[in-house]
Amino acid sequence: MSESSGRVEDRAAKPQVVKPRLLSGFRDFLPRQALLRQRVLAICREVFERYGYEPFDTPALEHAETLTGKYGDDEKLLYRFVDHGGREVGLRYDLTVPLARVAALHANDLVLPFKRYHIGPVWRADRPQRGKFREFYQCDVDTIGSPSMLADAEAIAAVAEVLARLGLPEFTIQINHRRIISGLARLAGVPERQARQLYRSIDKLDKIGADGVRAELVERGLDTDVADRVLDLVTMCGDDQAVLADLRGRAAGDPDILKGIADLEQLLGYVAGLGVPRERYALRMSMVRGLDYYTGPIFEIIVERPNIGSISGGGRYDGLIGSFSGRDVPATGFSLGFERILEVIQEFNLLPTPETSVQALVAIVRDRAAEEPATDPGTLAALAIVGELRAAGVRADVYLNERRGLRDQLSYANRKGIPLVVIPGEEERARGQVRLKDLASGAERDVDRPALAATILELLVEQPGRSSGAPP
Amino acid sequence: MSESSGRVEDRAAKPQVVKPRLLSGFRDFLPRQALLRQRVLAICREVFERYGYEPFDTPALEHAETLTGKYGDDEKLLYRFVDHGGREVGLRYDLTVPLARVAALHANDLVLPFKRYHIGPVWRADRPQRGKFREFYQCDVDTIGSPSMLADAEAIAAVAEVLARLGLPEFTIQINHRRIISGLARLAGVPERQARQLYRSIDKLDKIGADGVRAELVERGLDTDVADRVLDLVTMCGDDQAVLADLRGRAAGDPDILKGIADLEQLLGYVAGLGVPRERYALRMSMVRGLDYYTGPIFEIIVERPNIGSISGGGRYDGLIGSFSGRDVPATGFSLGFERILEVIQEFNLLPTPETSVQALVAIVRDRAAEEPATDPGTLAALAIVGELRAAGVRADVYLNERRGLRDQLSYANRKGIPLVVIPGEEERARGQVRLKDLASGAERDVDRPALAATILELLVEQPGRSSGAPP
Repeated sequence: MSESSGRVEDRAAKPQVVKPRLLSGFRDFLPRQALLRQRVLAICREVFERYGYEPFDTPALEHAETLTGKYGDDEKLLYRFVDHGGREVGLRYDLTVPLARVAALHANDLVLPFKRYHIGPVWRADRPQRGKFREFYQCDVDTIGSPSMLADAEAIAAVAEVLARLGLPEFTIQINHRRIISGLARLAGVPERQARQLYRSIDKLDKIGADGVRAELVERGLDTDVADRVLDLVTMCGDDQAVLADLRGRAAGDPDILKGIADLEQLLGYVAGLGVPRERYALRMSMVRGLDYYTGPIFEIIVERPNIGSISGGGRYDGLIGSFSGRDVPATGFSLGFERILEVIQEFNLLPTPETSVQALVAIVRDRAAEEPATDPGTLAALAIVGELRAAGVRADVYLNERRGLRDQLSYANRKGIPLVVIPGEEERARGQVRLKDLASGAERDVDRPALAATILELLVEQPGRSSGAPP
Repeated sequence: MSESSGRVEDRAAKPQVVKPRLLSGFRDFLPRQALLRQRVLAICREVFERYGYEPFDTPALEHAETLTGKYGDDEKLLYRFVDHGGREVGLRYDLTVPLARVAALHANDLVLPFKRYHIGPVWRADRPQRGKFREFYQCDVDTIGSPSMLADAEAIAAVAEVLARLGLPEFTIQINHRRIISGLARLAGVPERQARQLYRSIDKLDKIGADGVRAELVERGLDTDVADRVLDLVTMCGDDQAVLADLRGRAAGDPDILKGIADLEQLLGYVAGLGVPRERYALRMSMVRGLDYYTGPIFEIIVERPNIGSISGGGRYDGLIGSFSGRDVPATGFSLGFERILEVIQEFNLLPTPETSVQALVAIVRDRAAEEPATDPGTLAALAIVGELRAAGVRADVYLNERRGLRDQLSYANRKGIPLVVIPGEEERARGQVRLKDLASGAERDVDRPALAATILELLVEQPGRSSGAPP
């Protein structure tokens, strides 16, 4: 119900019927999905807070000029309009640019280094397709004000733990460095004006293979031997330290590459020091993250089992905050592809989640003699029981239509997926008991009323697979 | 960091500096505020789920036609624009209309009665003022598909428990009935066309007193004795049952009033049956809720201590869903004035909340001999300790700039409000210990490393007032 200060209108002014429609690319979340989303969010929050990231939020709407010039060609996907005050505004497109805006605006209030996480919706007027929405959640950790590779390592460690906790058994955090990529282009003799094309082609290595990339590079005007040199460099593999040593040998003193190597050596040391399992991260010299604003290490998570590819990315962006404050502030972070992860969790049932948050329905068994429901002893007994259960921490509901029989109420509980039904029949009540029915097994038992809440909580713990014993 | 598929741009294309600005009426939430908001939301969620309400969400954007015709004059406050596909869209203005849209759209998927809670932002282009924002949270419970007053009673009981849990010691849930109000107007002889004016005047009773309302009514053309009769009716007070009996005597068989009385008698019975303390609710015949769509009981919460007036409202709106489906579906609910409640909690410090979610900072004490931070034994010891603390459930952070001294790190912890600092000095490490410093008392102690996490968690429990021992 709204807290509006609207006026009382004539009840006669009934609005005409409007066909109920959802905008394409947007979603309603009914309880079952909302429960799973809430559970995944709770895990992200809990892990991020344990890793020292603090909660944080920004508005859905920003001045349009805050958002423009940040997303390259994708800027056309911004939802923009003019507000009532004639201001150009836009819906936030990601959580990083608002963070940079805050870091510049609240430069005096923030104690640096500042670690925050931010989970919330963003909006992009993209073409909706399977798994791609116009409103979707992002789930980011970022650190502002630390040039140290330890800040990058912390982001990697936090995200690795979230994924492990969510039950994704096999994934690799791929690591590269923006300055190595641009150095490699220079080293291979690719002219500056072709560098961007080069990055795009390299980015397709996984999709079209080395031969495909070579063909594309040549087609775009690179000499065959330059293309070969590039491929040679970006497909280096083996032990991470060996790859870096090899690269240092080939770097010919290029300062970008040498800086990138030094950063990555530190980063790898910190990631290991934080206890991230060795098989969860690896250098990958062909990994190119798309965004303009990266300036240092870049990350991308590839999930191998289930085999779903990239679900997250991030990196260091030491120049972005400066685009608001005029003064560069180092920053780095990681964004989890929340919707993609949810899809995987659902598809592979990684986090079995109950259909409903309700754990027990208290049926209303009316006295045969009663006329008025609100004073009927059977109804009042049900209300007293539901009150007791709630006070004991059980998520309990009472059937809300008084004039239905027990069969209707059991069917209701079944259709909702409520695991247990409490039946306070007249005879049981007379004995100080109630009947407790487990809908999964069909088993019934009479329980002394003082023991009811404890019995229910025990039963739910015993059946974690199906019941709502797990916190929703 | 964004998951965008943006293109790699030349790093040279550095954007010009844009002044960081927040839109008027919108807010950033830095960690301290975000923590408190999160804590209040968690309490709302927990209580609502115990009362059988299920989680639920809808998009920020709706087709404009979904939102229009619902809010009377306030419709002008809707944020509306035309999207990329030429569709008229609007940001959601409350959580009730989207619920009604969902109830009509998903009529076949929802098992009725359907109880849901919904907590999320809404947007209104209102004039910003103290405590009034253009983006603010609503926090609603509603039941769809039950005509029973038990559904209304459940909403009252859930909201009463939330407020009690939030530490608001004295409040009254005022109850009235839309059909009694319109019946009273008829009974007093107020012509149909003046009824709306009448409601507005009655609504001011608390502000301008009975004499003020009388004067206003007469000024607007009512006969003095009609105005007196109205005031006589809406200022009835005393025991709720006595008021209803009195009203029944005066109703002269008016079907609206009689229906209202019957509903309220049932409602009061159920509210008592659910165990809501008697002093937490009362009939108030002069209470008029503003929205068009109420059709039955209406509610409003007045907080007496601290004395802040109305913070919530709700009621039954059996016609709203029909405006989408063409078929009336009964519905009722309650909306907590989330931002108003938060203000009160902050002003009176009802929920002491830590400044930060971080419980312990692990300082980095570098070995004097070390050159390279990522391989420095002192740094690696700090990383190992922070990893152990996190694994044990402590929200722990490590200082992210390696080249700072201990004094800087203690000052950092102090400014952030982190209660405890772990100092793994070389000597202590050699003994298998670390130093633990409590910043509030200044007390230091050496702790055996295996006992560190447990010692920290104990210390935090002992100082719940200041530390971040409470769940954030």
